Amino acid sequence: MIVIGELINGMYKDLSRAIANRESDIIQHLAMEQVNDGASMLDVNIGPYSKDPAQEMRWLVETIQMVTDVPLSLDSTKADVIEEGLKVAKRRAVINSTSADADKMDIIFGLAKKYNAQVIGLTMDRSGVPNNKEKRLELAAVIVAKAIECGINTEDLYLDPVLLPLNVAQAQCFEVLEAIREFRLLCSPAPQTVFGLSNLSQGAKKRSLINRTFLAMAVANGLTAAILDPLDKKLMDALITAELLLNKNIYCESFLEAYRKNR
Amino acid sequence: MIVIGELINGMYKDLSRAIANRESDIIQHLAMEQVNDGASMLDVNIGPYSKDPAQEMRWLVETIQMVTDVPLSLDSTKADVIEEGLKVAKRRAVINSTSADADKMDIIFGLAKKYNAQVIGLTMDRSGVPNNKEKRLELAAVIVAKAIECGINTEDLYLDPVLLPLNVAQAQCFEVLEAIREFRLLCSPAPQTVFGLSNLSQGAKKRSLINRTFLAMAVANGLTAAILDPLDKKLMDALITAELLLNKNIYCESFLEAYRKNR
Repeated sequence: MIVIGELINGMYKDLSRAIANRESDIIQHLAMEQVNDGASMLDVNIGPYSKDPAQEMRWLVETIQMVTDVPLSLDSTKADVIEEGLKVAKRRAVINSTSADADKMDIIFGLAKKYNAQVIGLTMDRSGVPNNKEKRLELAAVIVAKAIECGINTEDLYLDPVLLPLNVAQAQCFEVLEAIREFRLLCSPAPQTVFGLSNLSQGAKKRSLINRTFLAMAVANGLTAAILDPLDKKLMDALITAELLLNKNIYCESFLEAYRKNR
Repeated sequence: MIVIGELINGMYKDLSRAIANRESDIIQHLAMEQVNDGASMLDVNIGPYSKDPAQEMRWLVETIQMVTDVPLSLDSTKADVIEEGLKVAKRRAVINSTSADADKMDIIFGLAKKYNAQVIGLTMDRSGVPNNKEKRLELAAVIVAKAIECGINTEDLYLDPVLLPLNVAQAQCFEVLEAIREFRLLCSPAPQTVFGLSNLSQGAKKRSLINRTFLAMAVANGLTAAILDPLDKKLMDALITAELLLNKNIYCESFLEAYRKNR
């Protein structure tokens, strides 16, 4: 499982201020905490409050790379912001994200090709997020076809079924689980599958319980990556255990410690 | 999800003594604890130490029925022991279990027909427990065919893929998950699916974490019943949450409490 740490996100006001003020120690501390707790990649999101997102993205990427060499997921709706990150990324980055809209895909896959990046493709378009598995699969097929047309290896494509909050779209959880299972069958080599987990429990109490239970269910359906909070220890315990149960790591009595030590 | 409480089991020495000495208060207390914590059915197993299993089964069923009217799962390898329980069961019982061996099925389905009972069918035979999904499906098909031949409604059949301990058969967990998903497609109406969860973590540390993570994964694959310890609160929390995520109960902020109050 590719664990993509979600915490470097300017959506959080404190962090937005830290970015605007170029407080590198705060960013670097948050990067290292996530890596130490299990992130194998870090999401980098300037957030909505930035006055100079492209320059902030560049600064964030450079700042994080001073302390860790895990790959970065460059998270922005704006192609120029993403490109500024791509220009300075030392490791192969993931572009987060494109929708299934043709004009958007042209731009994003073009960037991916230019910078040898991977891409997260959201199975949504201008008409919104589908409310069933079938429509998600239809959009996933559109994304896959476009990726292949643009010369992107399908292994480098992360299909994201778009996980909505449980408290507003409860029936969607099952559709997402089934979509994850079927995305893997769309092409060969199989695409990665990913979602932003925390969105599921937005506005809910018992957030960690909801998140970790759903994550185990998604792992059972073949999820290969997730954007999540690696500092949530119970969530990471559930993830390690779910992967153990799928025989991804060898069982031993102290499998939690062994996993954390050996990765 | 049909939660079958596992704790009335003479395998535990204390309980075996309580049964032998006819200490009804111990049995009744354990029955009520399980029902109060979420069991919708109770497994009744005399255990291996009994000198008079048929009479003990009869006494257990009568003793439990004095305090609760949840259905009982009569758990024994011996048909005469099961029949003694069936004779006195007030509610429709489940026979736990038959294998896929023809002679065994003849006897057990015969009993089921005679007493209008449901049946757990283990996808194993004299050659043992299969080590993959395909062989489990093959045996499941044999059980389904025999059940139909004997006039058993397939909704009243619980197919059990046989969950082995993680520490001796780690690769089997995935096979079991996939088998559960496919069992449901074998016939219409779909059979129930069930397993004895605690067996998974026999001999392991972190038993509850392993059990509850796997249970969530199995629920995602369509599991409809499980024999488990309903007194494990974290396990029950995971189960309630997994079912919520499959839209089986309506989301509200206090969904755990609401579930426990409303069932």
